[in-house]
Amino acid sequence: MINSIKIAVDAMGGENSPKKVIKGIEIHSSASSNIFYNIFGDQRIIQPMLSETNINKNSYKIIHTEKFIRDEDSPLAAAKKGKDTSMWLSIESLKKMESDAIVSAGNTGALFVIAKLNLKMIDKIEKPALSALWPNKNGMNIVLDLGANIECNEKNLVDFSLMGSALHKSLFENEESKVALLNIGSEELKGNNVIKNTYQLLNETKNSLFEFKGYIEGNHIMDGDVNVIVTDGFTGNIALKTAEGTANFITSELKNALNSTLVGKLSSLLNISNLKKFKKKLDPRLYNGAILLGLDKPVIKSHGSTDEVGFANSLKVCEKIIKGNLIDKIKKNII
Amino acid sequence: MINSIKIAVDAMGGENSPKKVIKGIEIHSSASSNIFYNIFGDQRIIQPMLSETNINKNSYKIIHTEKFIRDEDSPLAAAKKGKDTSMWLSIESLKKMESDAIVSAGNTGALFVIAKLNLKMIDKIEKPALSALWPNKNGMNIVLDLGANIECNEKNLVDFSLMGSALHKSLFENEESKVALLNIGSEELKGNNVIKNTYQLLNETKNSLFEFKGYIEGNHIMDGDVNVIVTDGFTGNIALKTAEGTANFITSELKNALNSTLVGKLSSLLNISNLKKFKKKLDPRLYNGAILLGLDKPVIKSHGSTDEVGFANSLKVCEKIIKGNLIDKIKKNII
Repeated sequence: MINSIKIAVDAMGGENSPKKVIKGIEIHSSASSNIFYNIFGDQRIIQPMLSETNINKNSYKIIHTEKFIRDEDSPLAAAKKGKDTSMWLSIESLKKMESDAIVSAGNTGALFVIAKLNLKMIDKIEKPALSALWPNKNGMNIVLDLGANIECNEKNLVDFSLMGSALHKSLFENEESKVALLNIGSEELKGNNVIKNTYQLLNETKNSLFEFKGYIEGNHIMDGDVNVIVTDGFTGNIALKTAEGTANFITSELKNALNSTLVGKLSSLLNISNLKKFKKKLDPRLYNGAILLGLDKPVIKSHGSTDEVGFANSLKVCEKIIKGNLIDKIKKNII
Repeated sequence: MINSIKIAVDAMGGENSPKKVIKGIEIHSSASSNIFYNIFGDQRIIQPMLSETNINKNSYKIIHTEKFIRDEDSPLAAAKKGKDTSMWLSIESLKKMESDAIVSAGNTGALFVIAKLNLKMIDKIEKPALSALWPNKNGMNIVLDLGANIECNEKNLVDFSLMGSALHKSLFENEESKVALLNIGSEELKGNNVIKNTYQLLNETKNSLFEFKGYIEGNHIMDGDVNVIVTDGFTGNIALKTAEGTANFITSELKNALNSTLVGKLSSLLNISNLKKFKKKLDPRLYNGAILLGLDKPVIKSHGSTDEVGFANSLKVCEKIIKGNLIDKIKKNII
């Protein structure tokens, strides 16, 4: 195929892999065209699975390896033993210009350490950031950093604003990117010194990527007034996981309440199409996929516990990032 | 009345005050005995409202003042003009030993500045912490600090663990207090230095108040495995508000989904008792009331936007804190 997008797929990481990975490729390939998949993993397991799918035989290649990184491996141990693993080889294919982006549902820490070992940082960016999609009332937020850096300085947070906006623009090309800094109040005087200094810097930054909207508090993240939310990795990780825990708590309490009586069960049945719509809007598979920003190639992490639909969505994110020229957008705008 | 608990009530703060305050007192007094309310505010407005209630005339006194602090006043401006305001006078009545605890639904920042100006810190505690109730699967968590201190050291976080457990024991006397430190991973090596040092200190701390259970991630706050969650004021504030925003987002999405068709509306009606049960369990009025810990008298902040039911619950928290000897528990256990 000519001019196709080449995605490196680590087939061996995460729950129910490689099955969900192959099925995810099938879902993605049926809705996309001109995508070529470099699939890294155990050919003896993967080939029979692929044969059972409708994936066009000219749209993939299996790069065989028997080694893979386990979820319980420490990032450092993984990096040491890593060279012949499916994760290492798939990242190396970016370095060799054989693939345009990589997706893995495997060990998060290992993926980032191996990516940092093999890929270059974008010039002028000191720290990479982990970003993800987070639903809001009008669509989706990009939130970063979600845990790559426990402590960040002003320059890092300004970089994150630029990188997050570039990602937002790549994924949602018709929307304006609006950046806000996560803080404990909306007044200028609130927060620690790093946040206050970042506020000043962003206010003075002239750029064509985003509009700076000031501070945002945790309870307004999902209002939809902004769509790129910037914070350090410690705070971002706590915020994301707290939101996840709250969502799980509420939906399980709701389920208990609706199923607690016969009338309840019956009327829930009647109402099932509406409840399904509700579930669909909040389906975490829709925004599956964290993106490591700051390296000169796109590295996408699919959630370890997601299924084939979630994995297919990570592939979709990959495709959009490449088509949207994410890395170029960052390079052009970085200060 | 002899041996009664005396609560200082700032009647003039928050939305719909003093009406909700007086009605809150009526609700609380109907379910409690031996409570005396020192009510601070404009007698000309409060007295007619009190006359319309069933509150026993011997169980309250109005301390008249025409001055009060507005929600939009800065804490410093409030402290300067404050001396004759309902908030200042109600806190001063603690200093004069005329009341045992104070509740206000007014300006949070002003309440804490005026409390710190008038009341002593408990010996050996350097920083006060703002704590609140947060529901979990088995009951309630105490979470602190929620914004009083942007940065905290190891000693502060150990103090917060002791104070949070003392509060937990006062409110839920039959439960064991289990402390966890909010962090971005559950392994010992994760987090910043302050958190890692606090982990070590808490592991070595021998005390009769709580059991230390290690780190907790944001997504497990509501699991109910621990019940006292300790963090710095920046992280705690972001976590609490993010949970609030997520809960609002999900319930409003659910409401939209259930009301989007006629069948949906009808079956929601059928299911209304179950949905009400659900709503009741998550009713924020149930855990209304933040508690400032570290001062030698209990200072309780009711949410500005709560109603009379929420205000009555703050009064209940007050009562439990006094009956549970919160301040003594802290003094006995502080290191």
